[in-house]
Amino acid sequence: MNSIEERLRALEDRAEIVDLIASYGPYADSGNGAAIEALWTPEGTYSFDTTTLQHAELAGLVDLGTHRDYMEAGCAHVLTAPSVRIDGDTAVATNHSLVFVRRAEPWTAERVSSNRWFLVRTGGGWRVSKRENRLLTGNESARELFAT
Amino acid sequence: MNSIEERLRALEDRAEIVDLIASYGPYADSGNGAAIEALWTPEGTYSFDTTTLQHAELAGLVDLGTHRDYMEAGCAHVLTAPSVRIDGDTAVATNHSLVFVRRAEPWTAERVSSNRWFLVRTGGGWRVSKRENRLLTGNESARELFAT
Amino acid sequence: MNSIEERLRALEDRAEIVDLIASYGPYADSGNGAAIEALWTPEGTYSFDTTTLQHAELAGLVDLGTHRDYMEAGCAHVLTAPSVRIDGDTAVATNHSLVFVRRAEPWTAERVSSNRWFLVRTGGGWRVSKRENRLLTGNESARELFAT
Repeated sequence: MNSIEERLRALEDRAEIVDLIASYGPYADSGNGAAIEALWTPEGTYSFDTTTLQHAELAGLVDLGTHRDYMEAGCAHVLTAPSVRIDGDTAVATNHSLVFVRRAEPWTAERVSSNRWFLVRTGGGWRVSKRENRLLTGNESARELFAT
Repeated sequence: MNSIEERLRALEDRAEIVDLIASYGPYADSGNGAAIEALWTPEGTYSFDTTTLQHAELAGLVDLGTHRDYMEAGCAHVLTAPSVRIDGDTAVATNHSLVFVRRAEPWTAERVSSNRWFLVRTGGGWRVSKRENRLLTGNESARELFAT
Repeated sequence: MNSIEERLRALEDRAEIVDLIASYGPYADSGNGAAIEALWTPEGTYSFDTTTLQHAELAGLVDLGTHRDYMEAGCAHVLTAPSVRIDGDTAVATNHSLVFVRRAEPWTAERVSSNRWFLVRTGGGWRVSKRENRLLTGNESARELFAT
């Protein structure tokens, strides 16, 4: 049996990671690049489609043409509650992300992706060291992010 | 470092708030106006579009024409897991809400909104003092609910 | 007031149940029948539409024609964060599940359901004893799963 301290810390770790991931969507939809960048470690990366953004590029994510277009049309970056496995000072979380865009009524899901988040404990709390996002278009590589 | 009591309470507060928000969708979809009303404080309000409902009007939310229409067609009030900040006896949570309606196959997202929930600790647990819901149609006011 | 041990256990129970439910979607989308089966008790059942799967049939869920078809087209089994009530060694959770499928761009929600999960504490952790899933097509039986 773990100590009270260990059990509290495990619960706090989980709560912090779940909240970090829940904050991504509102940050993306409100164009808050600085807040997105702050979720990652200085060495952190974010890969989607054929793109990999380095930490210094993360704040600019919301200024990409596709993102600006989403925001002007009206968008919702919807992330599902993740399943999280914590192992000491690292963690892995899996969840879905969906981007709903309002080209017209009703909104439609223009992106539906699998996600695998790699997280590390830092002096300032948990941060993302790597996030991989792959469109669920029937390909094996997107399903691999959900492999156990 | 906070005491064990403080840490437990912080975790319990968070769990209670997350669960409260998770309960809204099932209550809305099952037409349970009394249960919705009980989530708010007696002074609580719920604003969406150009409407602001006072506490006494919350139970009637499920009897509005639009809501009855949703339920007859088949609907899902989908709320994402919120990001929550607790400060003593008050808290603020942000998340998305989406209303899927089955006019025909498949279901479509007729409403996609940003939400900001203001919560207070009461003698009977956490309650909503104010919820603001704005359609993500590309306007700045909806994005403001997600501002940090 | 409950003891520290009781409060920790209540939080751990909740975290475990929420994570179990969050793991279902990634398992389904990656065709991991063995992992799905392991979420249920040996006597557990999963009912949807007019089908009830027994435990021995759960792993085969991902081999059903409809499921294979979803995976080939590209699919996301999206589950919302549940509302959970724990009572000793049993629990009940309610949430939505949505199956997004990519027949063409964009993805559409081919299934949108209410869910009621019955869970039990076992020697190996929490498991599902029964899950009921009903399409939200405007019928009363689907809404009943969300009744308090």
